[in-house]
Amino acid sequence: MNATIRAVTRVAAFKGFNVLGFCRGWEGLISDLVKPMSARSVSGIINLGGTILHTTRCPHIRTKAGLAKAAARLAEYDVDGLVVIGGDGSFRAAMALSELTDTPMVGIPATIDNDIYGTDETVGFDTAVNTAVAEIDKIRDTAISLDRIFVVEVMGRSRGFLAAMVGLTVGAEIILVPELPVREDEIFSVIKDNVSKGKRSAIIVAAEGIGDTRALSSAIEKNTGLETRLSILGYAQRGGSPTARSRYLASEFGKKAVELLAEGKSNCIVGLQNGKITSIGLRESAGASKPLDESILRLASILAT
Amino acid sequence: MNATIRAVTRVAAFKGFNVLGFCRGWEGLISDLVKPMSARSVSGIINLGGTILHTTRCPHIRTKAGLAKAAARLAEYDVDGLVVIGGDGSFRAAMALSELTDTPMVGIPATIDNDIYGTDETVGFDTAVNTAVAEIDKIRDTAISLDRIFVVEVMGRSRGFLAAMVGLTVGAEIILVPELPVREDEIFSVIKDNVSKGKRSAIIVAAEGIGDTRALSSAIEKNTGLETRLSILGYAQRGGSPTARSRYLASEFGKKAVELLAEGKSNCIVGLQNGKITSIGLRESAGASKPLDESILRLASILAT
Amino acid sequence: MNATIRAVTRVAAFKGFNVLGFCRGWEGLISDLVKPMSARSVSGIINLGGTILHTTRCPHIRTKAGLAKAAARLAEYDVDGLVVIGGDGSFRAAMALSELTDTPMVGIPATIDNDIYGTDETVGFDTAVNTAVAEIDKIRDTAISLDRIFVVEVMGRSRGFLAAMVGLTVGAEIILVPELPVREDEIFSVIKDNVSKGKRSAIIVAAEGIGDTRALSSAIEKNTGLETRLSILGYAQRGGSPTARSRYLASEFGKKAVELLAEGKSNCIVGLQNGKITSIGLRESAGASKPLDESILRLASILAT
Amino acid sequence: MNATIRAVTRVAAFKGFNVLGFCRGWEGLISDLVKPMSARSVSGIINLGGTILHTTRCPHIRTKAGLAKAAARLAEYDVDGLVVIGGDGSFRAAMALSELTDTPMVGIPATIDNDIYGTDETVGFDTAVNTAVAEIDKIRDTAISLDRIFVVEVMGRSRGFLAAMVGLTVGAEIILVPELPVREDEIFSVIKDNVSKGKRSAIIVAAEGIGDTRALSSAIEKNTGLETRLSILGYAQRGGSPTARSRYLASEFGKKAVELLAEGKSNCIVGLQNGKITSIGLRESAGASKPLDESILRLASILAT
Repeated sequence: MNATIRAVTRVAAFKGFNVLGFCRGWEGLISDLVKPMSARSVSGIINLGGTILHTTRCPHIRTKAGLAKAAARLAEYDVDGLVVIGGDGSFRAAMALSELTDTPMVGIPATIDNDIYGTDETVGFDTAVNTAVAEIDKIRDTAISLDRIFVVEVMGRSRGFLAAMVGLTVGAEIILVPELPVREDEIFSVIKDNVSKGKRSAIIVAAEGIGDTRALSSAIEKNTGLETRLSILGYAQRGGSPTARSRYLASEFGKKAVELLAEGKSNCIVGLQNGKITSIGLRESAGASKPLDESILRLASILAT
Repeated sequence: MNATIRAVTRVAAFKGFNVLGFCRGWEGLISDLVKPMSARSVSGIINLGGTILHTTRCPHIRTKAGLAKAAARLAEYDVDGLVVIGGDGSFRAAMALSELTDTPMVGIPATIDNDIYGTDETVGFDTAVNTAVAEIDKIRDTAISLDRIFVVEVMGRSRGFLAAMVGLTVGAEIILVPELPVREDEIFSVIKDNVSKGKRSAIIVAAEGIGDTRALSSAIEKNTGLETRLSILGYAQRGGSPTARSRYLASEFGKKAVELLAEGKSNCIVGLQNGKITSIGLRESAGASKPLDESILRLASILAT
Repeated sequence: MNATIRAVTRVAAFKGFNVLGFCRGWEGLISDLVKPMSARSVSGIINLGGTILHTTRCPHIRTKAGLAKAAARLAEYDVDGLVVIGGDGSFRAAMALSELTDTPMVGIPATIDNDIYGTDETVGFDTAVNTAVAEIDKIRDTAISLDRIFVVEVMGRSRGFLAAMVGLTVGAEIILVPELPVREDEIFSVIKDNVSKGKRSAIIVAAEGIGDTRALSSAIEKNTGLETRLSILGYAQRGGSPTARSRYLASEFGKKAVELLAEGKSNCIVGLQNGKITSIGLRESAGASKPLDESILRLASILAT
Repeated sequence: MNATIRAVTRVAAFKGFNVLGFCRGWEGLISDLVKPMSARSVSGIINLGGTILHTTRCPHIRTKAGLAKAAARLAEYDVDGLVVIGGDGSFRAAMALSELTDTPMVGIPATIDNDIYGTDETVGFDTAVNTAVAEIDKIRDTAISLDRIFVVEVMGRSRGFLAAMVGLTVGAEIILVPELPVREDEIFSVIKDNVSKGKRSAIIVAAEGIGDTRALSSAIEKNTGLETRLSILGYAQRGGSPTARSRYLASEFGKKAVELLAEGKSNCIVGLQNGKITSIGLRESAGASKPLDESILRLASILAT
């Protein structure tokens, strides 16, 4: 987030724009929590997690009254262009807002869930993946030392992008994602096959979106007779110093967003597609569901043999 | 663990002893899972988490039959001295075993819980503290960005040593340990005071030993009206590459344990007391409860103002 | 490296091939340091730095005699396909070897230098970038606290790929790469401009390929009158647990390499191009020089204002 | 540093003192770079490296004029007590200053060199050790993969405290410190012995204080015929997020320093001795040289066999 704010602010300042920061996301726009930004006000933040502008869920923006206030504020401050940094919800709000204002808006996909159609990767995804991988590498120490099964729940909301990449890169024996349901008995038999091969520990990476992981791990213990533990990786996945790749995407996305506004483009989001920095319409992005690359899951299952 | 195994093995080899490793802890002693160890067989492991000898809970050792088998095995292999690496449970088993055998035993306290009487610090404690601190530093990014309360549950079994040190060093607003119960209304008022001071986020570090942290975080949200999240730091605390300090203690403890056996000492555990490597009797250690230094909690509450 | 070896071995085993590992690179092929590999022999290595097969520079392979021996060995073991994991030098040797044998060869670009034509990214590059970034983040603490200029030399052999990405993502004030020489007086004036803006510290990321960084930092101190320090980031950049992205590329590249051999393809290298896993001819890759994306440097200089 | 500033400020505020921060160390006292500090002004810094107050070497304080100015400033601001955070040089300056003023002063030993008499450990030492250990763990990956000798130079100024602890905890084959010179031929023979045991790589940890490590590594390569590389661990050792232990010491030392001043004590430094937070006179500390515990070196050499 901070690396994105830094990029947007400095590229905009470089192009001669005045930059305002609305604190606490949409709430800041509605409630006039605004602060002037300069190249200096974003110095020393590229390596910091979180966001200096703060953020919050803002139900108010989903109401007519909230949207009207937001539109009024954009007029009041005579905003030539609004950069919306966030995920799904932020972009839906931007779309609704675009009905009430002519202020051009460009979205920058920044969410650990990587569930935005129109970009192969979101800002923060690589950081969250590496945070989860580092934790699971440690959990594996215990799994192996104690010959235990670990079900590790990672974030990702209703999607499996985070779980799939984490599972592949930690060498998980099993990866469970909402997009590709696996029957419990299949899970049991994979574990039993492993035991027959002499592999007495296993890491099962499960997306939070698959449902009750606690019940699952009990079922595994009950059925396989092997000690099974559940570990829910928490909010650490959302914070921490960003990886180089997240900082890189934040920088490129921030630059692209300002360029698009400078060119008079509007109501689109920037993205990374086939290795290039691109953009697509807000509406197009919101309207489509990003497919999960299932080949990653097949590869993971081969590599976990 | 591995750093301890390395130290014991190499110091013993240096002193001309033959070294046997019993795999999977007591179960290995009972079920004859033994492997000859040499200086070479422990190379390249000082920086690895977990244990190359594996370990497991072994109910069998709590039975007369199990103890008898263990004692018989010690005789069979003509063991001159047994080094027991572990915590509370391992040492209680060692004490019971000492009734049935003359084989001298020395314990090395290695547990993240730091709850062994007779040592100011256990092997692995510093590693677990730093793992938890690194995670909570990341959680704080989210807490601050989102103005949220986080209840973070750390391990420590029935004691608060881990929670107290973690809470002090992350600058937790509140630390909850079993040794010093805090009434819920006190917790609420501390949070409300902070809000009145303009501090809208808080980290509450809670030892797993205090009970239902999920109920607690709901109660906090309900009472303070602030979004509250629970994050349970999992088994990552038990693994990972050991910190320098844990490696240092492992090395000193391993050396001391072998020296004690070489001197004919028996049935004691090594420890760090007032900055010196020492030892006390197994029975004395098992019989006493290690006090928690409450001044740490007072200092933490002053520093979190 | 290990993640690549794991992927090649397991995918090949999955496809029913026997797998042999030649230790210490070409030297192992010449001197018959071979070991049979199985799915099991690569377990638990995906998170380890270095390579279980060891490696070494092998001048011998640049001689007719060495090549002849290598070719003979391939025949002796009746090798159906050779996967060559490494960089520039390894691939040149593979090309020379291909004159003397019909054994199909496929290269997997694995070098922190990212200087292989035909792939946008090499295995290990992301890991090296993040290692350097983490170190420089720490150096910046000192730079800012002490108001100092730091010249930080990173690896990359004769190219600036590593320096450019590291410089962008640490927010370096200046990035120096061999592909785009900067005159010393330009460097001085950038620093002086920063001072006039009240920015009394600076990080200058320099590729090892630009020449004498020690002389440079003395010149900067002499000319600007600001305390300047040189920090040469060492071999830590070559080791350490791989990042998720490096593990991902290793897995995809390993799979692709085996598939190409299974399809009877020969004398090519796998790569990532425009976000897709692809391949190009060994000869084509060796014949061309990979261009450095200078837009990264321009973006970095804007973002460092 | 920041953790210490936080502790001093908050404990002092808690006791009802007004707190002033002098920026850039002694220079700030001389040149009137002062800022009022409150509990709020040190929030969110416990996990940050460096120092929010900045620091700098200040030759001026070694002059009569400088000291006079500093003394005058203490009177001007009517300072009841001065907390001096730093090392050797800072404390010598404090002693000189104490001749010209009655303002009580208490020193907090904060240096990665751990070379202050009167404390077993300084703030920052544990952090620097762990940073060096993490880097050398990565270097060992390369050392083992390439069968190479690495000479790794760590900081520590004229003393070997950092090198000794780092060397022990990375399992260095050889540790070189100024306090215990080792003849080159002894180094060569240790390496040759290792080779004869089949150990073809080695890590030699050398304190910067032993002299020319570049010449040493050339001599090793020349004499043993094994590829030898020098890696100088740089300023990263001085920065980075502090370890839990450094934060703990910073907190305890800060509290103790304020308590001593509140009790009217003067001209002493706080310390950790035999596991207790203590203090000794500034003069006593400056007058004595802290001994290096050579048993650590003996233990390291046994454990590296």
